[in-house]
Amino acid sequence: VSATAVAASATRDDPRLAMLSLNQATTQHWTVRQAVEGCVRAGIGAIGLWRAPVANAGLTETARMVADAGLRVSSLCRGGFLTALDPVTRRVALDDNRRALDDAAALGAACLVMVVGGLPEGDRDLVGARNRVAEAVTELAPCAGEHGVRLALEPLHPMFCADRAVLSTLKQALDLAELFPADQVGVVVDTFHLWWDPEVWEQIARAKGRIASFQVCDFLTPLPADVLLGRGMMGDGQINFPPFVSAVAAAGYSGDVEVEIFNAEVWASDYDEVLALMKARYLSRVLA
Amino acid sequence: VSATAVAASATRDDPRLAMLSLNQATTQHWTVRQAVEGCVRAGIGAIGLWRAPVANAGLTETARMVADAGLRVSSLCRGGFLTALDPVTRRVALDDNRRALDDAAALGAACLVMVVGGLPEGDRDLVGARNRVAEAVTELAPCAGEHGVRLALEPLHPMFCADRAVLSTLKQALDLAELFPADQVGVVVDTFHLWWDPEVWEQIARAKGRIASFQVCDFLTPLPADVLLGRGMMGDGQINFPPFVSAVAAAGYSGDVEVEIFNAEVWASDYDEVLALMKARYLSRVLA
Repeated sequence: VSATAVAASATRDDPRLAMLSLNQATTQHWTVRQAVEGCVRAGIGAIGLWRAPVANAGLTETARMVADAGLRVSSLCRGGFLTALDPVTRRVALDDNRRALDDAAALGAACLVMVVGGLPEGDRDLVGARNRVAEAVTELAPCAGEHGVRLALEPLHPMFCADRAVLSTLKQALDLAELFPADQVGVVVDTFHLWWDPEVWEQIARAKGRIASFQVCDFLTPLPADVLLGRGMMGDGQINFPPFVSAVAAAGYSGDVEVEIFNAEVWASDYDEVLALMKARYLSRVLA
Repeated sequence: VSATAVAASATRDDPRLAMLSLNQATTQHWTVRQAVEGCVRAGIGAIGLWRAPVANAGLTETARMVADAGLRVSSLCRGGFLTALDPVTRRVALDDNRRALDDAAALGAACLVMVVGGLPEGDRDLVGARNRVAEAVTELAPCAGEHGVRLALEPLHPMFCADRAVLSTLKQALDLAELFPADQVGVVVDTFHLWWDPEVWEQIARAKGRIASFQVCDFLTPLPADVLLGRGMMGDGQINFPPFVSAVAAAGYSGDVEVEIFNAEVWASDYDEVLALMKARYLSRVLA
């Protein structure tokens, strides 16, 4: 029996792990089936799914696998990319988001995570891009309501403003979400994106009833060559997690806590060991 | 006569270039003397100096060179790094900042740019680090007043929060600066660091009388492997500059506009051509 197996069995029935969720991006090279089986082995009760591996596994088959395994689907990643200037690209994006809502509903996902999109190539009008996001969410929100799936607007770290998300702060995401019913549009609180923001505490408090997803991972410094991969295992960077746990709880959030790590070293590791480490760090760094 | 020389002579007497300043980090491998001579050749009337090349050239000799050349010193870079936990390191940092104020006064610099410092190794207390910055500025502000040099608090892009500056937004920098007399503590408006911030316009308006330095360069996407070098020539990224020019003018700023570019490609170029391009882009991208 390996040390990892012992650590896993020591923590698998710890009630404090009840709301821990594996975002499958953390185990990038596992199929949906492997990730579901990995969660079951590790005693993890929820999974955040991504559309591409779900498409590879088949939507119905994925829904069956997670149901058979008794897993909650804490989120489907991801919709968004709503900032195109030309009407055709815009229409294609909206249609794709409607299909993502279909998929999220079929999977029983708690929400569809929305990475809203950056500036179109050569464009420099941030206000215009943000307005197009608002217009697109206005179109999609009723569809989300019909599907019983929340759109979860994700503010991304400002370093992704040009290429991924013109929503950079929780305040911006809430300003937009609050234009719609809370069961249709919520927000994502992701420690990696928000930890630096001096106003994050007052904004989380404001987010009562609007937090659709809570994601944790650390912020690595120095950032790697591809800054998208600067997400680290909790404890490997300089984020202080427990205040986030307390703040989202005080704002009424009692849902899953997803661990989403894009990191070349993690992706090259043994994933059963990644899950064991994730549980241990969740207990020692996130909750305490 | 090269095309560059023609372009330079075409623009050298353009009155719109009157407030353009070369931050010498843009011409990283030039000595102070080379940078001063380069400004004179290009008809640039101001320079932002850095302490290390100034030390190499000699403080008195540098002061003489810029005076002989008729250049304004738009800033001295840089003081700061005030977040150390241990008293000895903290004392060393404060003493170093006092020497930097001496140097800035000797050079007739308009301000001392302050990069306040990140989290100490292993530390996760952002609020504590910000409080230590406030305490250090409280110690340094009267010294700045005696020297007739303004401390220019620079909010850095949030991607530098852990390792360079726990001040990430103009709002934070102003909240701190406003505790002190305006002639002692001001702020830096740097487009690279602030362009993504949806609140930057209302904060620049609030900064009336507090803008000590205005720096421009573009934000490159994707970021290079070393994100510190993600600063690009104006027009090479997705920042819209004219609204910044209008906003700082409306806030009463009439000082120099420094071009500060950390960029491996720029640093490997012919610096007379860099200055010619900088003037051209200043006219075509920053002012218009």
